[in-house]
Amino acid sequence: MVQIPKKEPARRSVPTSADVARLAGVSRATVSYVLNNTSAVRISEPTRRRVHAAARELGYVPHAAARSLRAGHSRMVLMPTSETPLGPLLSQFFNELQWALSRLDYTVVQYASLGMTGEDAARAWAELRPVAVLSPDASALGPRGVEVLKRSGAKAVFTLGPQRVEGAHALLMDGRRVGEAAALHLLARGRRRIGAIVPEEPGLEIFSEPRVEGLRKALRAVRITGASLTEVPLAYDEASAARLAARWRSLGLDGVFAYNDEYAMLLLRALQDEGVAVPDETAVVGSDDLMLGRLLRPRLSTVRIELPSGRGLAELVDRVVRDPGTEPEVHDVLGADVVHRESS
Amino acid sequence: MVQIPKKEPARRSVPTSADVARLAGVSRATVSYVLNNTSAVRISEPTRRRVHAAARELGYVPHAAARSLRAGHSRMVLMPTSETPLGPLLSQFFNELQWALSRLDYTVVQYASLGMTGEDAARAWAELRPVAVLSPDASALGPRGVEVLKRSGAKAVFTLGPQRVEGAHALLMDGRRVGEAAALHLLARGRRRIGAIVPEEPGLEIFSEPRVEGLRKALRAVRITGASLTEVPLAYDEASAARLAARWRSLGLDGVFAYNDEYAMLLLRALQDEGVAVPDETAVVGSDDLMLGRLLRPRLSTVRIELPSGRGLAELVDRVVRDPGTEPEVHDVLGADVVHRESS
Repeated sequence: MVQIPKKEPARRSVPTSADVARLAGVSRATVSYVLNNTSAVRISEPTRRRVHAAARELGYVPHAAARSLRAGHSRMVLMPTSETPLGPLLSQFFNELQWALSRLDYTVVQYASLGMTGEDAARAWAELRPVAVLSPDASALGPRGVEVLKRSGAKAVFTLGPQRVEGAHALLMDGRRVGEAAALHLLARGRRRIGAIVPEEPGLEIFSEPRVEGLRKALRAVRITGASLTEVPLAYDEASAARLAARWRSLGLDGVFAYNDEYAMLLLRALQDEGVAVPDETAVVGSDDLMLGRLLRPRLSTVRIELPSGRGLAELVDRVVRDPGTEPEVHDVLGADVVHRESS
Repeated sequence: MVQIPKKEPARRSVPTSADVARLAGVSRATVSYVLNNTSAVRISEPTRRRVHAAARELGYVPHAAARSLRAGHSRMVLMPTSETPLGPLLSQFFNELQWALSRLDYTVVQYASLGMTGEDAARAWAELRPVAVLSPDASALGPRGVEVLKRSGAKAVFTLGPQRVEGAHALLMDGRRVGEAAALHLLARGRRRIGAIVPEEPGLEIFSEPRVEGLRKALRAVRITGASLTEVPLAYDEASAARLAARWRSLGLDGVFAYNDEYAMLLLRALQDEGVAVPDETAVVGSDDLMLGRLLRPRLSTVRIELPSGRGLAELVDRVVRDPGTEPEVHDVLGADVVHRESS
């Protein structure tokens, strides 16, 4: 039994493994073996318990950094955070992914890199020596950034987003699918002069541009005479929507894809306030299938986006970490289909 | 000038500072001085450039962990992530705080700790040796958790939320204010039999309980005869709202605080579909002042929550890190007032 003093004088300094060794009456090496769960060295159960009791008493925790320095690798998965707050759909997805990785015993940290891109960002991330990096913005990272990460010991570099980058595994989220689905739906409903709402808020281009590209692609593919696409900027506030609604009829649009459900709800209300009949004069389609969109009258038609389960992706990351030699893989992870309600 | 070979054989191993020293023709100590920007040692500009060029060429990045081990402290601010996805208001706030801390040269990492609480969570966080921790859930951390963090070298431990915890600085977000503001508004509008929507979704109790407590507190304070409070559970889906609306009149409520704007919109629509007149029969008040709430007819009355600027909080964290001896401070950071629209 260890004699643990009931009251200790207030200690100012951070306890070290040497303090634990002294209190437990063992060597520092033994402390390290026990607290790092080294299987290479056999240590008796009573000694093990003595070390744990001493560590608990002193409030000593091993230093993850020191451990990863010794071991030459970490269990840290680094996910850079985006400057633009994510919508509910992606928030939910990243949340799930994060918990699934935690369950596989990874430490997930999200990292705010303040507008750094490419090699600069990669160097900042690499300083933490993550074993895997999941970067949402492939174009900003670039192949040199991937190289920096790999050289620092990252075994798995994944990008999530619309683009691939050389050397990294890609979880391809092809936002063009969203626009394509919306365009094909509007065309099937007999609409020809299609509008595309483009948010004026900065930072949303990475989502909105592929969607518009998808609309354009679908219109080219169907080759319907007279079908056209008009980009229509809109800021996310009532005044901007009212101004747009006031000149709506002059645009001559009979269908509109409104970027997402929030912009669609904003536009729908402004059109109704202006007396524009939805869907008779103009059909409106949103995206993301928010519950709130169903509360409007007419109920909002929307593109439902399907993302893979966080658990499946976590297992994929884990597989690549265990077998880092595999060639970069591309996984197409975004599905899109239209939920037809009353606004189209 | 360093002779940098134009093509190098593909390298498998992670470059070390020894490799950089070799290529630059300097000692490892010099590499460390240059790359860590040590001001204590004077190093000539040409040597500095040579080291940087060699590091870039090899793709070497210093190890943040090694650096913090040497220096005995880090610039890492750790923010545990919550299991419940945050609403738009708190997301925006944390985003701002994160960028403000980055601007003060902290590395902000969000950490998913998978349901660990108290000392267990604190030990996991302490392994990363953060210089500061901002924990959203004070009750789960507890005084022992705070102690673990401080002993591991954290200079500033802050909690954000409705409660304080001994030993930590508190950014007190007193959610009772939200309920109080809503109750006083409803009472002032002549309502007496007040309902409080309580979300059935798990994880939201930490937000909803203080709001209900605030409603109760306000009702006690005003001492109006016949004023009552009824808690009404509601799940965030249309079927649950329709069931509640169908038995609404039997509850005999003339005013309801609906937890937040999303639940309020859901309830409002269900009441309208059931023919319950809002606000004539029942006044409805939400919270968070979402833009979408203004799109409903009647426009939704709501509690606007004021949070401090991320920049101000970042400066507070920085001040405590620089002067860690200060007594735990309590900052009351949540303001709440009602925006009266048409639903109440």
